[in-house]
Amino acid sequence: MKKILFGFSCLIMLMTCQEQTKFKSLKVTNINELNEALKNCKAGDHIILANGIWKDVEIKFYGEGTKDQPIVLKAETPGKVTIEGASSLKLGGEYLEVKGLYFKNGYTPSKSIIQFKISNDTIANHSKITQCVIEEFTQPDRDVTDHWVEFWGRHNELSHCYIAGKSNFGPTIRVFLKGNEHIKNYHQIVNNHFGPRPRKGGPHGETIQIGASDTSMTPSHTIVANNLFDRCNGEVEVISSKSNFNEFRNNVFFESEGSLVLRHGNYATIDGNIFIGNDNSKFIGGIRIINTGHWVTNNYFYKLKGESFRSPIAIMNGIPKSPLNRYNQVTDAVIAYNSFIDCKSPWQFSVGSNVSQSEVLPPSEIRSARPERVVMANNLIYNEVPDEYPIINYDKVDGVTFKNNITTSENKSEVQPEGLVTKAISVNKVSEHLIVPSENINDIYAGFEFESISKDIFRTARTSTQNSIGAIVNPVPENTVLIDKSKYGTQWFKAEVSRAEINTFNVSTAEELKSKLNEATSGDIILLNSGHYNLNTALPINKEITIASNDKNNKVELIFSSEKTAFEMHPKGKLILKDVILTGNKAQNAFTTLDKNMSKAYDLKLENVDISNFKSVLEVSKGSFADSITVANSTIKNCDNGFMLNKETNNGGDYNAEFVTINNTYFDNIGGTILDFYRGGYDESTIGGYLKFNENTVTNSGKTQKDQILIKNRGIVNVELSNNTFENNPVKFIAILWGEKGQKPVDNSIKNSGRIEIVQNLELKLMY
Amino acid sequence: MKKILFGFSCLIMLMTCQEQTKFKSLKVTNINELNEALKNCKAGDHIILANGIWKDVEIKFYGEGTKDQPIVLKAETPGKVTIEGASSLKLGGEYLEVKGLYFKNGYTPSKSIIQFKISNDTIANHSKITQCVIEEFTQPDRDVTDHWVEFWGRHNELSHCYIAGKSNFGPTIRVFLKGNEHIKNYHQIVNNHFGPRPRKGGPHGETIQIGASDTSMTPSHTIVANNLFDRCNGEVEVISSKSNFNEFRNNVFFESEGSLVLRHGNYATIDGNIFIGNDNSKFIGGIRIINTGHWVTNNYFYKLKGESFRSPIAIMNGIPKSPLNRYNQVTDAVIAYNSFIDCKSPWQFSVGSNVSQSEVLPPSEIRSARPERVVMANNLIYNEVPDEYPIINYDKVDGVTFKNNITTSENKSEVQPEGLVTKAISVNKVSEHLIVPSENINDIYAGFEFESISKDIFRTARTSTQNSIGAIVNPVPENTVLIDKSKYGTQWFKAEVSRAEINTFNVSTAEELKSKLNEATSGDIILLNSGHYNLNTALPINKEITIASNDKNNKVELIFSSEKTAFEMHPKGKLILKDVILTGNKAQNAFTTLDKNMSKAYDLKLENVDISNFKSVLEVSKGSFADSITVANSTIKNCDNGFMLNKETNNGGDYNAEFVTINNTYFDNIGGTILDFYRGGYDESTIGGYLKFNENTVTNSGKTQKDQILIKNRGIVNVELSNNTFENNPVKFIAILWGEKGQKPVDNSIKNSGRIEIVQNLELKLMY
Repeated sequence: MKKILFGFSCLIMLMTCQEQTKFKSLKVTNINELNEALKNCKAGDHIILANGIWKDVEIKFYGEGTKDQPIVLKAETPGKVTIEGASSLKLGGEYLEVKGLYFKNGYTPSKSIIQFKISNDTIANHSKITQCVIEEFTQPDRDVTDHWVEFWGRHNELSHCYIAGKSNFGPTIRVFLKGNEHIKNYHQIVNNHFGPRPRKGGPHGETIQIGASDTSMTPSHTIVANNLFDRCNGEVEVISSKSNFNEFRNNVFFESEGSLVLRHGNYATIDGNIFIGNDNSKFIGGIRIINTGHWVTNNYFYKLKGESFRSPIAIMNGIPKSPLNRYNQVTDAVIAYNSFIDCKSPWQFSVGSNVSQSEVLPPSEIRSARPERVVMANNLIYNEVPDEYPIINYDKVDGVTFKNNITTSENKSEVQPEGLVTKAISVNKVSEHLIVPSENINDIYAGFEFESISKDIFRTARTSTQNSIGAIVNPVPENTVLIDKSKYGTQWFKAEVSRAEINTFNVSTAEELKSKLNEATSGDIILLNSGHYNLNTALPINKEITIASNDKNNKVELIFSSEKTAFEMHPKGKLILKDVILTGNKAQNAFTTLDKNMSKAYDLKLENVDISNFKSVLEVSKGSFADSITVANSTIKNCDNGFMLNKETNNGGDYNAEFVTINNTYFDNIGGTILDFYRGGYDESTIGGYLKFNENTVTNSGKTQKDQILIKNRGIVNVELSNNTFENNPVKFIAILWGEKGQKPVDNSIKNSGRIEIVQNLELKLMY
Repeated sequence: MKKILFGFSCLIMLMTCQEQTKFKSLKVTNINELNEALKNCKAGDHIILANGIWKDVEIKFYGEGTKDQPIVLKAETPGKVTIEGASSLKLGGEYLEVKGLYFKNGYTPSKSIIQFKISNDTIANHSKITQCVIEEFTQPDRDVTDHWVEFWGRHNELSHCYIAGKSNFGPTIRVFLKGNEHIKNYHQIVNNHFGPRPRKGGPHGETIQIGASDTSMTPSHTIVANNLFDRCNGEVEVISSKSNFNEFRNNVFFESEGSLVLRHGNYATIDGNIFIGNDNSKFIGGIRIINTGHWVTNNYFYKLKGESFRSPIAIMNGIPKSPLNRYNQVTDAVIAYNSFIDCKSPWQFSVGSNVSQSEVLPPSEIRSARPERVVMANNLIYNEVPDEYPIINYDKVDGVTFKNNITTSENKSEVQPEGLVTKAISVNKVSEHLIVPSENINDIYAGFEFESISKDIFRTARTSTQNSIGAIVNPVPENTVLIDKSKYGTQWFKAEVSRAEINTFNVSTAEELKSKLNEATSGDIILLNSGHYNLNTALPINKEITIASNDKNNKVELIFSSEKTAFEMHPKGKLILKDVILTGNKAQNAFTTLDKNMSKAYDLKLENVDISNFKSVLEVSKGSFADSITVANSTIKNCDNGFMLNKETNNGGDYNAEFVTINNTYFDNIGGTILDFYRGGYDESTIGGYLKFNENTVTNSGKTQKDQILIKNRGIVNVELSNNTFENNPVKFIAILWGEKGQKPVDNSIKNSGRIEIVQNLELKLMY
């Protein structure tokens, strides 16, 4: 008996020792304790951050874990550890794991929030960040560049995270390949939920960028799989792949205003992804292809209406012998077994062809090299409402082989290959957004190495007896949904916040107005009782707020004697002003953004507003950005200037507002320019700036405009100018439009004013 | 018993059947039989070409062999089947083998002699050419481009072949990567003997080119191993690697006037190669590095004296954001464990830096991007006679990390890194050209992934207890020789031909001279007995021949009334003319090449020769090429022009002669130019044309030269002009020298003649 007992106790001791060696678990409550714990950490250790706010912490997590015994840094309770203020996390060593942290209310003081290296000599490998959230941890100044997650080293992972709300310069996720330590990295970016990234107004707003042009020759092997890209609208490239052998599998791109772009580098695999658009947006893109050897298979495109750069499949023209950072010719691409459901003109070839611009661009910028050795086979184009132009070509299509593709509409495109046949098919709607042919269409083209496409989008085997053109082979597995939100992001964070109840306040005095404005929460409405309100301070707008006259037939007058501005626009400020009269004393602007730290976009909407006696109607600061400025049914008189969206002058393709819409509004006696909306720099890949200036009347304006231009829209890509009346404006030009972008005046009435000029090709400073 | 017998006979039948299935062996005696046999060939078949001459045969070898049962096409006796005339061999299908063929006395009527595809749809894979010889199967017209072996498809092999004597345009071996069928090819070019390739005079004379700039982004994985490159002098690139992931292992570069050049593409492995030079040649190169991620390890460099582009290790400057076909920056290269024995300034950085030429070149041609993230570690520089300048830098060296390198000489270079230490070591001479430190030097730097360099040049393991800097770890395996010729080439062909006995003929009349010239074999000598010889037809020179006066103090006069020329230079003609007088009647040139089909180089050497009354001394045709033209101690008078090497005007970097040496010669009354030696086109990588014009006297010449230039050397890279006397030449310029190439006149005496101009940067037509 003694013997047995002795043996038993030994066993317990051994177990305890092993347990200790394996799982030293240490809870820390502040940065000093954490640093101490990190200094001594060993393979298998778990360091636990106590719940609470961790403010202004720059964590350097160095350790040498092993495959079986990683070193873990985790939240006591996932989501209950918030990293706030000027904070960051850098990792170095081997087999590290970080779990459950929540970055919010702050921004990084360095170049990144999370970085897989501590220094060039201390790089992380085989390490992962999982179950974490980064939410609006964005720089106060949008012009300051950072990345939220920087990948360095090899075999690192970002998984099951929720990341949203970056509004400053710089891709959200950036993979670096500068140095042999970082190539062949096989990083995994998987099962994340990339929440909304707002429009940035210019380039450098990607959600993921893998490599850069100067390392675009490196083998990267980064894997981006099973992520949800949820309204990632930062710029035209949701993902910018700039290195070799990257893989993009089974991601969902949901209403994201951009494309998965193979910008540099070669031999990407894009398999099994889902692109969801809608009937209203031309901004939601698909896949844009540049360079050599890409395979695009088993992808499902639904209701994409994007054109040119943002078309479902955009195959670009290259620059012959392109410089490293420009556009290589597309060669040896395979686009096979994809489904295009209710898309518009899904196949666009020689996108970016700009031979016509050879007079304003140097030869090294002319994209004249057409795609070569491209195979498009076994694809399905289905349209409930016929789309008779499945193909748009911006140059001759002579390097593309079409085999065994089907469209359900008649093909009236200029390009009518034998390998694209019109055929009626019946379909089933399996679940939301998911439309599948009722029967397999098994007249398959067997191209070179097509046997490697052995499964469909839902991993159903493609066999000699069971196969189909398009992304989907019948039978579809039971209960298949296109977007299963449980697969993406953390287990603990709810991305959808239900909107708080909307309050409506009635006010009768200036003081009440100020007080309720301060008190209100986002979305609230302030109704002004009739009368005149004298305001000697500016009204700050830092939330969504509606201010309107209670009786729209009896407009309230707000009379400003404030110093700089009537309304001060803050980040996230959304002002809807209705049925009011704004009167200044020429000492201030009507609307002005903060001078700096406009970290987020603002919006301005004027409906039936009469504005007079201000310096400018709108003045903005350099880093500021309005998502939309909408003016309708208003009058604007006796101001020095109108809307001045002209401070983003770095000539890097950036601009101060995305959508500017001015409609049925009367401008009279505006001394300078009605609108100055500026985008500088030649960058064909930022395609924004939208101006609609329709049905307005402008009189007696532009007297003091030194360039003698009434409406300035230099470099803005999309401009409408129609049904306006211009009378007695002493300028040379009403506006100068950009012919190459299809801008032209329509039905304007011009009397005793300047003329509307069209310049075919704008001379622009080359950005590259 | 019957049963047993029956069983036994069945067995025999089965065996026979099996044998037949396995090895159907069919001998064919002419192309029709061969075609018939090929039409029906099956896996395992052997088709045997009967011994003899196969003339004007264009063989298309299509078949579907298997790994275990290839289809074999072979010579009845290796080497006894000669393929001659207008012939070629194309392969298509799987697992084909060709053995023992001998290509000679002809040339291909198509673009290649051997081609691993029959058409774009019929490509060969897993096929090989082995034990074959291609000897001087070269185009009659040097300007016609072909390749001798074109690789297409995947997994093809060229092994144990002897290939020599290509003198026309085009790389000898060319690997193509245009199309997914040809990438990831893993071709094997192994155990071949690449015999002498003559100097070509300009680009496109590589022995092996793998890919091209427009497919330089492709993964190629071609393996070039265990080959002997024996005086492959075609151009500055013996091998031009232009794709990714190629491997160059254990090859010997013996006195080859060029380098292994990583011209385009990335991530090459250059391991265990041997580069042998000698004390006399500055043309024999090593490894030239461009682009990213190359590993250069375990190589042995012996007596290389090349400079700049041809230095043992030449690391180039790149063009920032280089166009696809120019020079990418060098990054992430590793040069480790190499030995440099008795080399001169073996490490040269920023080779090709041309910032000084920015006034004549566009920005897209300026190589200003210095190497970055380059590691040079564990290398050994040993010099018996000290070389105090191991490093030459053409720009700042700020992107190179030097670790644990040793030189045996003091380092007085401008660059003196801590990681290059001077240390005396003792060495053993193990065998010819093989010098090894007596003891291992095991102070090793362990760089990133250096553990992958697990063996030395002789496959001795590098371990923690047994390792050394340099290419070789002691102990060296017994009986190691650097060059074991039995490893290379065929089993049946002898590359070295012993020279026939030299005959000397004495002649006394013009008829005798003609007759003996016809009769003589290469290397023979014709001695002229004294007197005058009247020659009314040209003397053809199609072999090496010496013609000299029997009594050099009593020079024979050859008086020509022939129509076009006195001597007609044919391919391979080498004329040594000594102690004679050549007199024309102004109706002919003294020396003229054939108008066309100058398939091979010729040589001309004049020693103590008096030439007068000719149109030109030398006139050449466009495709012609003289390896050397040497004139010494001679007089040249009363001719319209001197040496006219000015017909290669395609401005592609080509020229009509390699070495032109004129020494101690008197020119008088030459109406036009003394010498017109032309090389057109900007191509920094062809660095030839050599002119030495020293100790000559030129009088009363140039009267009719329309450009008023006495000596024209436009575009020739290497020019000496010293100790000459120029008197009474009515020209504007004696010569125009190219300052950027270091040309300058030295100690010339000039009276009443033009001047010698130096132009720093020549304006040249860009070739790219």
